Amino acid sequence: MTGKTDTAGFTASKTAMLGVGLIGGSISKALITRGVCREVAGYFRREETMKTALAHGLVTRGTMSIEEAVSGADVVILATGVDAIPPLAECAAAFLQKETLVTDVGSVKGLIIDKVSAALKGRPDVLFAGSHPLYGSHLQGPAAGAKLDPTGKLAVVTPAKSRVNAEKAAVRTEALWQSIGMHTVRLDPEEHDRLLAFSSHLPHAVAGALARMLPQEADVLTATGFLDTTRIAAGSPKLWTEILCANSKAVAAALDAMIKDMKAFRKALGKNDREAVARMLEAGTAARARLCEQMPPEEQ
Amino acid sequence: MTGKTDTAGFTASKTAMLGVGLIGGSISKALITRGVCREVAGYFRREETMKTALAHGLVTRGTMSIEEAVSGADVVILATGVDAIPPLAECAAAFLQKETLVTDVGSVKGLIIDKVSAALKGRPDVLFAGSHPLYGSHLQGPAAGAKLDPTGKLAVVTPAKSRVNAEKAAVRTEALWQSIGMHTVRLDPEEHDRLLAFSSHLPHAVAGALARMLPQEADVLTATGFLDTTRIAAGSPKLWTEILCANSKAVAAALDAMIKDMKAFRKALGKNDREAVARMLEAGTAARARLCEQMPPEEQ
Repeated sequence: MTGKTDTAGFTASKTAMLGVGLIGGSISKALITRGVCREVAGYFRREETMKTALAHGLVTRGTMSIEEAVSGADVVILATGVDAIPPLAECAAAFLQKETLVTDVGSVKGLIIDKVSAALKGRPDVLFAGSHPLYGSHLQGPAAGAKLDPTGKLAVVTPAKSRVNAEKAAVRTEALWQSIGMHTVRLDPEEHDRLLAFSSHLPHAVAGALARMLPQEADVLTATGFLDTTRIAAGSPKLWTEILCANSKAVAAALDAMIKDMKAFRKALGKNDREAVARMLEAGTAARARLCEQMPPEEQ
Repeated sequence: MTGKTDTAGFTASKTAMLGVGLIGGSISKALITRGVCREVAGYFRREETMKTALAHGLVTRGTMSIEEAVSGADVVILATGVDAIPPLAECAAAFLQKETLVTDVGSVKGLIIDKVSAALKGRPDVLFAGSHPLYGSHLQGPAAGAKLDPTGKLAVVTPAKSRVNAEKAAVRTEALWQSIGMHTVRLDPEEHDRLLAFSSHLPHAVAGALARMLPQEADVLTATGFLDTTRIAAGSPKLWTEILCANSKAVAAALDAMIKDMKAFRKALGKNDREAVARMLEAGTAARARLCEQMPPEEQ
């Protein structure tokens, strides 16, 4: 894993943002605001979303035609939910200009890299690498995206190793994210998926379980702690079903590890083994403290 | 479960706050600020904590003698960690004035009610009911307590049914919390412990598990979601070992239910049963939405 930040040297004349929701919208806005790109054409499936995005100045132009969005674009960003990304790449393939950079923002990389690489097989002349910008919220849509700033956040870039120009595409994708003030880190798609299973997908599954198990009589007895712990459960079930199923192997392995850990904790509690309980809680507190050392207080 | 708020009609001439940390400190400050109590004597085991509490104006007087703190007090609040509460009650018993109201702020009620009732067996002339003010943070100590405001928060009051004056004590305890702007709800200690296992103790156990299972290589890949979900794991392992062990039966039952739920989720994922995965995620999202309907946006 290597990281670097270098905001210089990337410009594009036209970016096609295919999907302008929370993440796509925030990226579009940053590209325009920072002067990285003169024109950002947004592709929409719903007129209402298009109106909202235009009203917030997230794109310079909106269209419901993929062809119109990608024609003449030197950057194409696939920014829908995980399942829609490969079919979008397939629809766009024929209209891509030579040397165009194609990337996506999906939370799972292995399956997407494979499927998008397959979709772009007939276009070895375009550049493709996968991306995962690591920020967001439990909110959705362009209006929420308008308030989200990628500056200082991390984007993981995962090369599509089966393609001839994998390295060139990855380098250019890193430059794209750096141009809007993001840090980048490069990972193999499989390593990304294994680690994100623990840092994002498992927490989502667990937050949902905690929320749905709460007896309704206990609603009034929840405080900040419960709300923090279950906040991500508010995220779209549709989008998260796609993410968890697209990374099912790694998420299942993380769930198995979590179940094993919880059984050990339950056993210690059942035996009133206070030392074991304390030791496990201390390990959790230490791990969290390790994370907090790496960030400003307001984000902890 | 019944709730009411009535801030009128409760005053005390002297409150003894036995333990002036996050919760005890915030209550002391509210009692003084709202003019409920002229004198709040804090009992401390460490001189440093006493200095901090006095510097923040959390108590009007500090002492390291239990006798001095409780002498002449008409309200005594046991505000230490769970394990120290019963021995404190035992030490204070002989020095309590007739008709004094004794309550505690422990996160577990069954065991505390039993033990404190036993400690006060020789003092049927004092009033005792258990309490659990439902607010806090992952921070500790009087300096953090000075920034914490109980206004608008909920206090659960659990009667000590084995005592002759259980009802009178519960009513007076409710009036105490209402005098500092809190809402109150009355619950049986066992019902409190069963419900809090789901709304607070299980989330704590789970947040710790998520934090300690994170591979260190994934530290850089954590974002807001992971930090929210594991925030409470930053809480004191010592205090939480006491809480979880004092409520071990109910917490173990909640852990069993959670493990069962996670196994079902893992099974659905392993079979790529997208409908079942979606249904479980939807149930989590719906439960959280139910909670959010009951509170202002900034707390969600």
